[in-house]
Amino acid sequence: MQDKTIQEQGISGNDSIYMCPVGAVHCKLKEPMLQASKDGLTLEERTQRASEQHQMIMSMVSELVFEEEYASLLDGIEEFSHILVLYWPHLVKPEGRELKKIHPMGRKDIPKKGIFATCSPARPNSVLVTAVRLLEREGSCLRVQGLEAVDGSPILDIKPYNPHYYSVSDAEMPDWMEQLQADIGAEDSAC
Amino acid sequence: MQDKTIQEQGISGNDSIYMCPVGAVHCKLKEPMLQASKDGLTLEERTQRASEQHQMIMSMVSELVFEEEYASLLDGIEEFSHILVLYWPHLVKPEGRELKKIHPMGRKDIPKKGIFATCSPARPNSVLVTAVRLLEREGSCLRVQGLEAVDGSPILDIKPYNPHYYSVSDAEMPDWMEQLQADIGAEDSAC
Repeated sequence: MQDKTIQEQGISGNDSIYMCPVGAVHCKLKEPMLQASKDGLTLEERTQRASEQHQMIMSMVSELVFEEEYASLLDGIEEFSHILVLYWPHLVKPEGRELKKIHPMGRKDIPKKGIFATCSPARPNSVLVTAVRLLEREGSCLRVQGLEAVDGSPILDIKPYNPHYYSVSDAEMPDWMEQLQADIGAEDSAC
Repeated sequence: MQDKTIQEQGISGNDSIYMCPVGAVHCKLKEPMLQASKDGLTLEERTQRASEQHQMIMSMVSELVFEEEYASLLDGIEEFSHILVLYWPHLVKPEGRELKKIHPMGRKDIPKKGIFATCSPARPNSVLVTAVRLLEREGSCLRVQGLEAVDGSPILDIKPYNPHYYSVSDAEMPDWMEQLQADIGAEDSAC
């Protein structure tokens, strides 16, 4: 069995792949940015709130606290200005994994889109990916700026941000996504 | 238990998070780009091979074939020019999850770095993230260009590529990473 692969090792009865959090996010954000639209707010009020929260997050400093056994895996990360953080949005309810289509950001004025065409945290495998500025490393703790993860989110992985690999200068989005970005003032989320 | 979260639902005895592949990659690439350095090649020869494989991958077209139950989740993705693909490198051996430090890309001329400071597919939670050009959607199949995943790789998630979110124009990398990029001719991996 020496040639057994990770996936084979990780398979459960229903072909699942399993992962183990390597750390957790510590920050002042206690609720996710995109609330369910049961709040009775008008579209304008919701957009205003989303915009305020986005601006707050862009300047917010979060701590990524890793388990001690993973501390040495961070060696060298401080040489990068930015990193990708892969985390698990642990407050999403199980039924979120069953959704097929949604109004992006709960906006009823935008036609429903398939989950894979949206940034919704509720998706079959909820691995969220964010590019953030790395401010500082101290042992098994990283301080980063601009992470929208709520306090307590399990961290699955971090990667160095390689602009040759992740920056696509000529990428194009549909009008509805551009509009969402503009509404929350995120056209240039310099992170 | 109606407020049970995904993580709670997915927890096993050792706090694992479970994921289920939503599809698989079909392509002509049968072996991963970064081979173990047991091949007896000189640094120059290995660099040359890595460069050739990189150039091949940049133009290679892969098919992302989704399970039928996930087809409708793709609705709207065709409006984006690029997507992020999150996949599982299934050929990585289990012991790869235990590595702490490596020579980046097997290059002994570069000092060892912690796994989190490298792009190694062998890492505690091997979720690989690539930005690729979306060429076409046909039902439950996407055709993309520039994906380095080998044939049969399980797909965990795809996301629309939002340049306001994933492009960081002022990101900086250490010299060793810039050198690796230059050696394989990937300074501008226009995908």
